[in-house]
Amino acid sequence: MHSIQSLQQKITDVFATENFFFEPSALYNPIVYALEQGGKRLRPLLVLMSADLFGGDIGEAIKPSIGVELFHNFTLLHDDIMDNAPIRRGRPSVFRKWNANVAILSGDTMFVMAYDYICKVRKEVLPQTVDLFNDTARKVCEGQQYDMDFETQQDVSLDEYLLMIRLKTAVLLACSVKLGAILANAGEEDTRAVYDFGENLGMAFQLQDDYLDIYGDVTKFGKEIGNDIVTNKKTFLYLKAFETARGEDLVRLTQYFSDTDADNETKISRIKQIYSQLGIDKLTHDLTEQYLEKALHCLDSLTVADERKVGLRQLALQLLNREA
Amino acid sequence: MHSIQSLQQKITDVFATENFFFEPSALYNPIVYALEQGGKRLRPLLVLMSADLFGGDIGEAIKPSIGVELFHNFTLLHDDIMDNAPIRRGRPSVFRKWNANVAILSGDTMFVMAYDYICKVRKEVLPQTVDLFNDTARKVCEGQQYDMDFETQQDVSLDEYLLMIRLKTAVLLACSVKLGAILANAGEEDTRAVYDFGENLGMAFQLQDDYLDIYGDVTKFGKEIGNDIVTNKKTFLYLKAFETARGEDLVRLTQYFSDTDADNETKISRIKQIYSQLGIDKLTHDLTEQYLEKALHCLDSLTVADERKVGLRQLALQLLNREA
Repeated sequence: MHSIQSLQQKITDVFATENFFFEPSALYNPIVYALEQGGKRLRPLLVLMSADLFGGDIGEAIKPSIGVELFHNFTLLHDDIMDNAPIRRGRPSVFRKWNANVAILSGDTMFVMAYDYICKVRKEVLPQTVDLFNDTARKVCEGQQYDMDFETQQDVSLDEYLLMIRLKTAVLLACSVKLGAILANAGEEDTRAVYDFGENLGMAFQLQDDYLDIYGDVTKFGKEIGNDIVTNKKTFLYLKAFETARGEDLVRLTQYFSDTDADNETKISRIKQIYSQLGIDKLTHDLTEQYLEKALHCLDSLTVADERKVGLRQLALQLLNREA
Repeated sequence: MHSIQSLQQKITDVFATENFFFEPSALYNPIVYALEQGGKRLRPLLVLMSADLFGGDIGEAIKPSIGVELFHNFTLLHDDIMDNAPIRRGRPSVFRKWNANVAILSGDTMFVMAYDYICKVRKEVLPQTVDLFNDTARKVCEGQQYDMDFETQQDVSLDEYLLMIRLKTAVLLACSVKLGAILANAGEEDTRAVYDFGENLGMAFQLQDDYLDIYGDVTKFGKEIGNDIVTNKKTFLYLKAFETARGEDLVRLTQYFSDTDADNETKISRIKQIYSQLGIDKLTHDLTEQYLEKALHCLDSLTVADERKVGLRQLALQLLNREA
């Protein structure tokens, strides 16, 4: 089997050597720019690690794994327009550096390129691959729509929120590991279980992201702390707090979130204090842990030798900042 | 074989009965709205007629033919944002009725739905189908980019223009007939020839569209006459006029196109007069005819009985407003 580091290196190498530039340059320059920005490349890593787990050929999995990363980056290009986001991975977003039209059309093109790479599989597994990818892409779009709907929707339930992050974030991680399993001819049961592993890992990952927005270390988190509070974003913590708060706490919570006079720091510290009183930090941490446990349980259930699972277990724990 | 009318009816029926609405409604309402608007449904008709030409099964071709129409409608949703177009098929465009974000995300979703339908083919022909579609979708994006580039590009050659309309318009008609051929297990030569038929037909079709913008009958054309002149759009007629004009004609042409004081009617009639003097109408008509001839020649070359070709020949002539 391959180490995480060696697979990461393979991904880095292929992104460095693969040509994503064609004519017309106005269409492909933003694509090259977006891909240069890098990021964790988590999704292609999951494809390769899953293929490796099931004894598949890494060389064969490389191209489709790039496809998943291209798809992820396409969604970022379009999401940044919709969210009016100026910064992506520490640099101006494509939408801001060029304009919305560029981000739309270069995004569309990246989407086609994603399909192109994803379809570079043996013809026996192509039907399953395109089914998986069509299903996933649909769900990711639906998740983004729910996310936008929630901005203006008065009442959002925790279940609705969990459905949204499942669609928007978790299914693409699930798709990544399932793709690796398909390529490696894993059995039906194992393919389903590894999908569930990815989905639960994705849920834990997103809940942790919500948590770190408030309780994270700015140097590690890579984003501004408290941004979700400042923008009144209906995260798990926000929704859980409103569900949990009673009496005076609920009044203060409502007041703090609607106070437009308070500066950001005051707003963040006040709300953080209520969250702590209500135990929202612990509740979020606990739910994250539950999803992580479910993910690891799915991994345990796979019918491959336990030593083959070490890599994905280690990756899952690293992602969730737990000790391996 | 099936008549054009019976195939059109099948397409109408399937669009009337097929469900394109899912949750969340904010995502799928604009999709249903866009598809309700109808249009000529030319592309699915080409898929079915081509499948029928090669003795394929129409029932099997219906779902993938819908996919091509979904793709076409997806491009319209995004193009209307980029072109800031308020009207589409006589009704507010999705972009105008809702907003750009809606048109982006519902468009993306239609794109996935397009792939979903296009992939509903027998697994033996799936590799060829996805290759064809990935290639086509890439080219359509590139064509739209060239079209946008030309708005600000000082010098656009006729060759560049012809490349642009080939990519933006012609290849999707070519893809449609090729898809029908693939589904019907047509031979390699025939598949290539029918693609060329579609591409040449597409070129003729777009050149005619440029022509009709100025010389069309408003009641039949369905758009305002002279709009390309008003917006200084670099159509075939515009580029051919600048290529052809010399001396005084060139001075007047430049002057008329840059005159911001003239009202639209004056501008249109002046430029139309120069076009007539330069014989631009005839040159455009002649080139359109050449592409149509090439298309019909490709049709003639197919190794199927001549009587099977009658339908596509008739459709081509109808599209180009020629007598059958």
